Amino acid sequence: MITTIGLDADDTLWHNETIFEETHTKLRALLSRYHDAATVDRRLFATEMRNLELYGYGIKSFALSAIETAVELSGRQISADEIHAIIRLAQDMLAHPVHVLDGVAETVSLLARSHRLVVITKGDLRDQERKVARSGLAAHFAAVEIVSEKSTDAYDRVLRRHQIRVDEFLMVGNSIKSDILPVLDLGGAAARVPYHLTWEHERVEHPPVHPRFFPIGSIRELPGLLARL
Amino acid sequence: MITTIGLDADDTLWHNETIFEETHTKLRALLSRYHDAATVDRRLFATEMRNLELYGYGIKSFALSAIETAVELSGRQISADEIHAIIRLAQDMLAHPVHVLDGVAETVSLLARSHRLVVITKGDLRDQERKVARSGLAAHFAAVEIVSEKSTDAYDRVLRRHQIRVDEFLMVGNSIKSDILPVLDLGGAAARVPYHLTWEHERVEHPPVHPRFFPIGSIRELPGLLARL
Repeated sequence: MITTIGLDADDTLWHNETIFEETHTKLRALLSRYHDAATVDRRLFATEMRNLELYGYGIKSFALSAIETAVELSGRQISADEIHAIIRLAQDMLAHPVHVLDGVAETVSLLARSHRLVVITKGDLRDQERKVARSGLAAHFAAVEIVSEKSTDAYDRVLRRHQIRVDEFLMVGNSIKSDILPVLDLGGAAARVPYHLTWEHERVEHPPVHPRFFPIGSIRELPGLLARL
Repeated sequence: MITTIGLDADDTLWHNETIFEETHTKLRALLSRYHDAATVDRRLFATEMRNLELYGYGIKSFALSAIETAVELSGRQISADEIHAIIRLAQDMLAHPVHVLDGVAETVSLLARSHRLVVITKGDLRDQERKVARSGLAAHFAAVEIVSEKSTDAYDRVLRRHQIRVDEFLMVGNSIKSDILPVLDLGGAAARVPYHLTWEHERVEHPPVHPRFFPIGSIRELPGLLARL
């Protein structure tokens, strides 16, 4: 029986990758006199991956990598105004309103009556806390855990900290790499709710075939899934 | 009787402000053709304070504010090469070796035998985790808590999470504002170990006069203080 539900935040509870995608579009336009969109995307992703170990996830890391990419792709010709525009893009992302996904408010409110809900998300501490606060969902969560990487070890630490038995734990999220595989690896259950965009770094070729993996079409299917488990 | 000791990390367990100070010196040199050192310092601090709510603490926030300041102070004339130099300064800070302060290794090792030690630090998640890992001290800590702001509420959450009674808790740190005042406010005890540099944002005019506040000269005095409490 599942007693605790782990909830991913970005692209599971609220829109996130759409905000990055909007910013990517603006960045491509900003750099269009130096390079085509595909080159901008490819080089930005390469810079982000090179800096990931040092920077970690989140908007500030993205911004620093975007500035570094702009310097490189412009042959060191990018202007101070253009750099400033990139900083403003990052600030707009951080200040962006939180748009909760369809079905989330009702489902979270319903599940909080019967289960302990723990948000487990990675990224920037302050930004994730701000989004939880702005989502209007905070009162439903027993805890919010912000980790630097969603590894098997990180999930193990969260479960131990809250004394959650792994066989009573279900993780819900959109990323097979970050929300599903490490939890299955620990012996937990995992439900995947797809989001229409996936950051290249989170992409996985094939979904797992596993008795405790439950792909669902919408977060609204969670109460039904829990009733069957 | 004190059973749990909270330990601040930056400038209490290892050098940190010295690394920022070295970077400030390099930034002043980089911008010296536009403005004098005092103006650079003043405008950088103003930019950091303006962005604090949005960015939070840490090196990535500092870097984004330094780039924004450079754009402004250069009258939007700063070159791509100079921007790149600022990004490299930030990357050097993140990759900087951890230099544990004098007396820390012995004292932490000694105290870990008799007390539960919990690191409580603010800033960037990945950067702080990396420093704990590199310090060689990690095995002595029962937990590492990285918070977005060292407020009274944040300490309260940490104490609840670890079921620490506030009258059995002593916080140790260099910042009166972040390590001492909020803990006294909760009813805990606090020992201040001075560091020779204090970031302007952390400065407090007068140390508190309070029966549970213990200014000490060095972390080496902690075991003696604990024996008297």
